[in-house]
Amino acid sequence: MTETPRPTDSHLHDVLQQIANEAQDLFGRGEVANYIPALAEVPARRFGMALAMVDGSSYTVGDAHTPFSLQSITKLFTFVLALKAVGEDLWTRVGREPSGAAFNSMVQLESERGIPRNPFINAGALVVTDILTSRYAHMDLAMLGALRRLTDDPALTWNVRIAKSERDTAHRNMALAYFMKSYGNFHNPPELVLDNYCRQCATEMTCTQLAQATMFLANGGVDLAKGSQPGEHVLSADAARRVNALMLTCGAYDASGDFAYRIGLPIKTGVGGGIVAIAPGRGTISVWSPELDAKGNSVLGAFALERLVQLTGWNHD
Amino acid sequence: MTETPRPTDSHLHDVLQQIANEAQDLFGRGEVANYIPALAEVPARRFGMALAMVDGSSYTVGDAHTPFSLQSITKLFTFVLALKAVGEDLWTRVGREPSGAAFNSMVQLESERGIPRNPFINAGALVVTDILTSRYAHMDLAMLGALRRLTDDPALTWNVRIAKSERDTAHRNMALAYFMKSYGNFHNPPELVLDNYCRQCATEMTCTQLAQATMFLANGGVDLAKGSQPGEHVLSADAARRVNALMLTCGAYDASGDFAYRIGLPIKTGVGGGIVAIAPGRGTISVWSPELDAKGNSVLGAFALERLVQLTGWNHD
Amino acid sequence: MTETPRPTDSHLHDVLQQIANEAQDLFGRGEVANYIPALAEVPARRFGMALAMVDGSSYTVGDAHTPFSLQSITKLFTFVLALKAVGEDLWTRVGREPSGAAFNSMVQLESERGIPRNPFINAGALVVTDILTSRYAHMDLAMLGALRRLTDDPALTWNVRIAKSERDTAHRNMALAYFMKSYGNFHNPPELVLDNYCRQCATEMTCTQLAQATMFLANGGVDLAKGSQPGEHVLSADAARRVNALMLTCGAYDASGDFAYRIGLPIKTGVGGGIVAIAPGRGTISVWSPELDAKGNSVLGAFALERLVQLTGWNHD
Amino acid sequence: MTETPRPTDSHLHDVLQQIANEAQDLFGRGEVANYIPALAEVPARRFGMALAMVDGSSYTVGDAHTPFSLQSITKLFTFVLALKAVGEDLWTRVGREPSGAAFNSMVQLESERGIPRNPFINAGALVVTDILTSRYAHMDLAMLGALRRLTDDPALTWNVRIAKSERDTAHRNMALAYFMKSYGNFHNPPELVLDNYCRQCATEMTCTQLAQATMFLANGGVDLAKGSQPGEHVLSADAARRVNALMLTCGAYDASGDFAYRIGLPIKTGVGGGIVAIAPGRGTISVWSPELDAKGNSVLGAFALERLVQLTGWNHD
Repeated sequence: MTETPRPTDSHLHDVLQQIANEAQDLFGRGEVANYIPALAEVPARRFGMALAMVDGSSYTVGDAHTPFSLQSITKLFTFVLALKAVGEDLWTRVGREPSGAAFNSMVQLESERGIPRNPFINAGALVVTDILTSRYAHMDLAMLGALRRLTDDPALTWNVRIAKSERDTAHRNMALAYFMKSYGNFHNPPELVLDNYCRQCATEMTCTQLAQATMFLANGGVDLAKGSQPGEHVLSADAARRVNALMLTCGAYDASGDFAYRIGLPIKTGVGGGIVAIAPGRGTISVWSPELDAKGNSVLGAFALERLVQLTGWNHD
Repeated sequence: MTETPRPTDSHLHDVLQQIANEAQDLFGRGEVANYIPALAEVPARRFGMALAMVDGSSYTVGDAHTPFSLQSITKLFTFVLALKAVGEDLWTRVGREPSGAAFNSMVQLESERGIPRNPFINAGALVVTDILTSRYAHMDLAMLGALRRLTDDPALTWNVRIAKSERDTAHRNMALAYFMKSYGNFHNPPELVLDNYCRQCATEMTCTQLAQATMFLANGGVDLAKGSQPGEHVLSADAARRVNALMLTCGAYDASGDFAYRIGLPIKTGVGGGIVAIAPGRGTISVWSPELDAKGNSVLGAFALERLVQLTGWNHD
Repeated sequence: MTETPRPTDSHLHDVLQQIANEAQDLFGRGEVANYIPALAEVPARRFGMALAMVDGSSYTVGDAHTPFSLQSITKLFTFVLALKAVGEDLWTRVGREPSGAAFNSMVQLESERGIPRNPFINAGALVVTDILTSRYAHMDLAMLGALRRLTDDPALTWNVRIAKSERDTAHRNMALAYFMKSYGNFHNPPELVLDNYCRQCATEMTCTQLAQATMFLANGGVDLAKGSQPGEHVLSADAARRVNALMLTCGAYDASGDFAYRIGLPIKTGVGGGIVAIAPGRGTISVWSPELDAKGNSVLGAFALERLVQLTGWNHD
Repeated sequence: MTETPRPTDSHLHDVLQQIANEAQDLFGRGEVANYIPALAEVPARRFGMALAMVDGSSYTVGDAHTPFSLQSITKLFTFVLALKAVGEDLWTRVGREPSGAAFNSMVQLESERGIPRNPFINAGALVVTDILTSRYAHMDLAMLGALRRLTDDPALTWNVRIAKSERDTAHRNMALAYFMKSYGNFHNPPELVLDNYCRQCATEMTCTQLAQATMFLANGGVDLAKGSQPGEHVLSADAARRVNALMLTCGAYDASGDFAYRIGLPIKTGVGGGIVAIAPGRGTISVWSPELDAKGNSVLGAFALERLVQLTGWNHD
């Protein structure tokens, strides 16, 4: 707990502390992602959490200032960037239904002839990256610029070693890209798109940065970042609501229904152990803990969010 | 528009009228369900809509007082009844993830070894009916009693002719039931459960009744029916929120993600052409129009809900 | 070895004896079918083998005179009976391609809209039984009559206890039948067809009887049974060749390709531990040993056939 | 009919002529492969057929001396080459079961974790090419050398234009290769293996050459090519039988069961319109006609083989 809470917010301070204490008991129940060596090196027993409120206040506990690998959480940002770039035309190339299958399955892609189910599974995020690769001379740098603006941190970057390690082992994602190309739903060379995709996945943020970067989704599309003009819109209020709806139905791979049932807030998870959640009209919550459950979501992160909504009622109207 | 709106509610009166007018243009874009003869006899060009507000006011337009066949909307009521009967143990027999496939698909049921993905697809609703069949001597009558209480209408019943017609052609549902039985996830004889299932599906309500019957979901679990004690809880506030979350992620078959994106309210649809939607803290909306789109959801119904949230902002916080 | 071999056949006598000796080493490598209690009671360590040659000679070793449950081997006989009854029209209701999946899978049946891949998987055999149920007042007795004629044994029958046990647990087969009925590819009540199906599966024969009963497939369609008229055709020579082709491509569930590669003779296996193989122009081979491999085929049976073709060259032209 | 038949063979001369006459009626019932432009340019109404008998005699009719694109028929030759190179170890990398699905499906590959069902579907042939790519410095030239030896034609080569066109559109095969690589079942860079694969597929032969090149499969593994030493073994007799068994169960994509049933000889088809069939102990048959049925097999080719076995009885023992 590092920010200076205003007196009236001492409740949230206590809530975060209580959650952090309770969460300790869950260490050891999951496993750190090991599909690429560089990710597997992260210490397992880490836990950080940050709140950013629409009134500008913020709260943290634990390792909230340690950068971690965003991984699939970046799918949220690329999706927003593509939505701004091409608008609702996006939906001719990707669906918006929950996948009902593992995040990198080929089966559904085959039965639906190369149209991925939603932008938050790998195939969908690859199509989104393909769209952005067509749009920007250097899509990786355009993405980074957007994230730097949202976090107000000009030093934000991707981890070169993790990006390279992911690229070297991206066989399945290459298969997905070529498969969609065989259906005509991929316009750039898969090799190039995968370069961009692996860089974006390797972007690192702290919990506090992640909570700040997603503030526009809790705040009717309006950014609060210091570098922004006051009241600057990232998205329209309606578009922000729609992004939240997609996070609610598709944000946690094949555990999205379970997250909606237990937690009831729009979220996006990543195999780096991060989760970001949106409490519309209230604020954003980010949590990081590297141990993952069988569906690839952070064990302590899911617990922390479930406790937060129990203690605050933020999932009730 | 038949109820007497209070002066301050003239806006909602106008909204319903405007939607009804606009919806006329969509007649002819869908097809009436024809998988059983009795359902196919319904006139296609009908449209009714009803609002029930938590303050007790209500509004209707068009054919809001014509009874229609609830069909899959009853899955919502059987699910609530089972949740009250067995609590969270329900989740040992059925999942809560979106299905990502057609509502009566066998494929996923096979890959997940007889556990249906959620209570709102046919396989899941059959398991729920199996649970209730074990619980009540006459599950069909228990269900009917619950619905009569929620609607305050002792004459509410199922359409015997439609129930029989559904039972006679229920081969695929029988296949689903026997298939789950082969995995041990079905306890009663499929023949018996299907009798109950087809009766419940054939229950008929008007839009006004349906809006009233689901009021507890908009009102923190508390029923407003005249026959109830004031403040009588159907579910706890938290359980009501969870039911809403399930409706949001799974309520419209394989178009659930699209409904969440466009409309953003918990809903449940039926092939009788009905849709019920929940605006938590505000009220409930029911709409009926028999023409269905390719995914089995009412064309005019979906349009009406999309317009309603645009005109009222009820999907924003 | 019980029949009196003619002097020139002492080689085959020795071959059977050698195989029986070698096979002993494989006991314990498989498991007796246990999906119905009555089948699981069979002693595991049994091995019998019988040859019936087109010249009328025959040879046996081990438990060749012990009756065992034919199970899926009866699919061969019902298929032949249906082919005689309705001819090539059969192929409008069932395919003749290998299944490429487990013997009782629903997935392919769904993707091919209720048409089973071939008559030797469960779904296909159920359709065949449905065809025969439409054709005969008592299909079960018609089938039994045909088998008694082929074996020349008026006492041949099904095991009532096994038939009942199979019927009581036939949930998955009921699911397959109702599923095909939902596509219009099932004409009789599934309950009735399953009665017939379970009786036929429970038919018991000895190895010697099984070798004799399939002789027409090795002998250009002509039966050699004592009760038959000399030269009586069961099938035309061309039809017999076609049945053999189907056995070669589809006779061993999802191990058919492996059997063709290793053994190269038309065969049909059953989970009772029996296998019958056809050496066209030479004779028939039947073998029985209850321990099954992971794909449901007899471990010692497959070994025995592989050794037989190595020692005799019967799979070469 | 160009070779000089010996007097006693006038029957086969007449048979080929009769088939060629009858086949004319079928022109127009299929479509020339058009997935790559260069293939689509072939005139549709061509028909050629050649027989090569184990006694050294040969017969042809129609366009038997026109080179055509072998396409998937080369899968037979690469499989034989790999079998000679690595022996039965081959089966650790690829199965030998019929696929039960379209020739380039991803679904089964996913459910069987990267092990293709057999060497005659695309995924399986890609693994075989990967094995040969590891084995030879220039696998494409090694393959070509083998085919030149079998046909005794030092000018045999691949069509550079077709090879390039296939390589440019090989997205789905690239997807298959990367997908298998993600399971560890692909050792070389997919780009390199695809270069080799597309060259081999574009190899051109005439019907007479194709019949000669496969003679060893009809002749107990022994080649009859003029350039070979007398009695030179390509494969052992037993290995040749096994290759024939694989052709019988898997040689015609998802129509293999139908070909076995109707024709009953080991075959291999290609989308260039060629089919080669083996009559063990008798000879080989090759036929070419570019119009394909819905499963990718030559319409006139299949007809010609079916008539040939009817007129000669070569599928009977």
